[in-house]
Amino acid sequence: MLETTIAAIGPLDEPAMTAARQLQARLTKPAGSLGALEELSVRLAGLAGTCPPPLPTPAAVAIFAGDHGVHAQRVSPWPQEVTAQMVGNFLAGGAVVNAFARQAGASVTVVDVGVASPLAVPEPNDPAASSGTDAGAAGGPGSVGGPADTEVPRLVTATVRRGTRDMTVTAALTREEARAAVEVGIRIAGELVDAGAAILLTGDMGIANTTPAAALIAAFTGVDAAEATGRGTGVDDPTYQHKIEVVRAALRRHTPDPADPLGVLAAVGGLEHAALAGLVLGAAARRVPVLLDGVIAVSAALAAVAFAPAAVGAVVAGHRSAEPGATVALRRLGLTPLIDLGLRLGEGTGALLALPIVTGAVRVLHEVATFDSAGVAEK
Amino acid sequence: MLETTIAAIGPLDEPAMTAARQLQARLTKPAGSLGALEELSVRLAGLAGTCPPPLPTPAAVAIFAGDHGVHAQRVSPWPQEVTAQMVGNFLAGGAVVNAFARQAGASVTVVDVGVASPLAVPEPNDPAASSGTDAGAAGGPGSVGGPADTEVPRLVTATVRRGTRDMTVTAALTREEARAAVEVGIRIAGELVDAGAAILLTGDMGIANTTPAAALIAAFTGVDAAEATGRGTGVDDPTYQHKIEVVRAALRRHTPDPADPLGVLAAVGGLEHAALAGLVLGAAARRVPVLLDGVIAVSAALAAVAFAPAAVGAVVAGHRSAEPGATVALRRLGLTPLIDLGLRLGEGTGALLALPIVTGAVRVLHEVATFDSAGVAEK
Repeated sequence: MLETTIAAIGPLDEPAMTAARQLQARLTKPAGSLGALEELSVRLAGLAGTCPPPLPTPAAVAIFAGDHGVHAQRVSPWPQEVTAQMVGNFLAGGAVVNAFARQAGASVTVVDVGVASPLAVPEPNDPAASSGTDAGAAGGPGSVGGPADTEVPRLVTATVRRGTRDMTVTAALTREEARAAVEVGIRIAGELVDAGAAILLTGDMGIANTTPAAALIAAFTGVDAAEATGRGTGVDDPTYQHKIEVVRAALRRHTPDPADPLGVLAAVGGLEHAALAGLVLGAAARRVPVLLDGVIAVSAALAAVAFAPAAVGAVVAGHRSAEPGATVALRRLGLTPLIDLGLRLGEGTGALLALPIVTGAVRVLHEVATFDSAGVAEK
Repeated sequence: MLETTIAAIGPLDEPAMTAARQLQARLTKPAGSLGALEELSVRLAGLAGTCPPPLPTPAAVAIFAGDHGVHAQRVSPWPQEVTAQMVGNFLAGGAVVNAFARQAGASVTVVDVGVASPLAVPEPNDPAASSGTDAGAAGGPGSVGGPADTEVPRLVTATVRRGTRDMTVTAALTREEARAAVEVGIRIAGELVDAGAAILLTGDMGIANTTPAAALIAAFTGVDAAEATGRGTGVDDPTYQHKIEVVRAALRRHTPDPADPLGVLAAVGGLEHAALAGLVLGAAARRVPVLLDGVIAVSAALAAVAFAPAAVGAVVAGHRSAEPGATVALRRLGLTPLIDLGLRLGEGTGALLALPIVTGAVRVLHEVATFDSAGVAEK
């Protein structure tokens, strides 16, 4: 599935991009006055292969949740159980991502790809879907992510293993496990698009997951561990220094090869990072845009473009996380984020805040009058 | 009316802000992880005097339109008639501001405060409202800005004079005209709030209006004309240098006193700038937030805080215009914009793109579970 997905990812469509540039020039506004929104609209036309590209509605957030063996190294002040507890919070609709998703009219799909603790799910909305790993069979078209689901977050259980191994001791995952997690992401992307989603938003939950994200960013970009590592949920100075050393130790142990993304994900990645890389690949293969959240998402996007460089054409950077590694990764991806407000929450919150900007950029091509049609003089 | 409005503007409510800070700390997210949204939510609680503050819904955009005598100095490549033509485009729903307002569910009120050319309004939705200057009498509560009006932009004719005088030759306005324009803005703010608007967004239209905006910013902040002046809709290098000299000449002729905002607005302002200053004052007096668009709005906000320093408490900076003067003004106002995407269109477009961020910041206080209620462990 990974190989066929990679093979399906092609370049942006130049005629559609030219058409979008020409249309932008005829609309009743000074040329270039919509700044970054104009080039974004052009790129989305190239992705869709048509101008105007479809409005990115409905939107679907996929939150991949997993735990991390490296938590044992005390890189986070939060107990590991919080991953499972927050999944319960997502499903109950009580987290920030839920509030933002309701506002944006986006569906929320929570994918347990590797939570270590038992989930405390108050009332699963579909018991069949939350057992076993074949979410596709449990739902079928229409059951995942359509607009009707906006109010009811859905759980997909697709556990590859109950948390990664400690990457300072051994590889976090086997290659087979890493591939399985990537393929969960590809599958979820396909299901969401089949159910009607016109844009996918990345979400993540996993106590300690900024540590593997930093290791992935260092591995794929070559920067030092200190440049890629941040304070995550807010660690103190000694923990921060220790966290940098943990990332450095893991990289020294595995010396991952950036040309081998599956090897990098296995050595120093996380299950949610791998699944998010798959989500990006799956979206790109379907020519549907994928709106990235924060540092976990951008670290996963580095893996995705290592698999398939053209995948970057489907990627929109939602926001600049306060984590320094996010800026390193965005620079490497060549992406400028839409929002930069010091957020460092994850869950998909930054992507959801950026969604109306993406929609607005496309809406301009659909709805704004031309100089000709409106009878407005040009300069 | 100006004096009573200024007198009604008070400081932010400290107990409500403390309550908002304490609530933010109990919500299921790491402390501070929502970055700038957290302090924004605290400030809006202080403005409303209650925690949580009301959701900023429905929203109302007020687009003030006017022309400029300084257009005769060839500071813009666009013919002056475009101001009237774009008003027609706003009323027909064909401009970018209309597309963004429909997306955001915001009403659009166009206020002709000084358009020079005859308006080509296809079919006024309310003939009574578009003649005479007493918009209040024409409408009455409920007729301006409520959610029912979202789809139908409304015209309010409140002409103070048909364009300003050329500020390089004489004062752009008399003090009485400047006051009348400010009071149009105050009145519109009151009517929109009476009709149910929970947040006001600034919009503007006026060919050449970045020239008086630059002069206002230089006058209120003391920076040189070159620092305050930008390329507006995109003038070429010689026109840009000429535009700086025009701003400099106007400032030299009038030496406006920043402690006398009415005098500054009269000497080098515009009718839409003065009305927007009034809108800010009117919103602040009603303790309703006002979301600023670009350089015209921030130049008007400088005038508003010169009238009443506490008015800044009601002001949220929507975006950072590409115009350099906007950054100068935002710094003086002590405001950090929510969006920074190189927009320089005006109309209210940048404010509308920022609206969902403001709404999201408040929504968090309404909807997100606490650690306690969600059964999530703390660190």
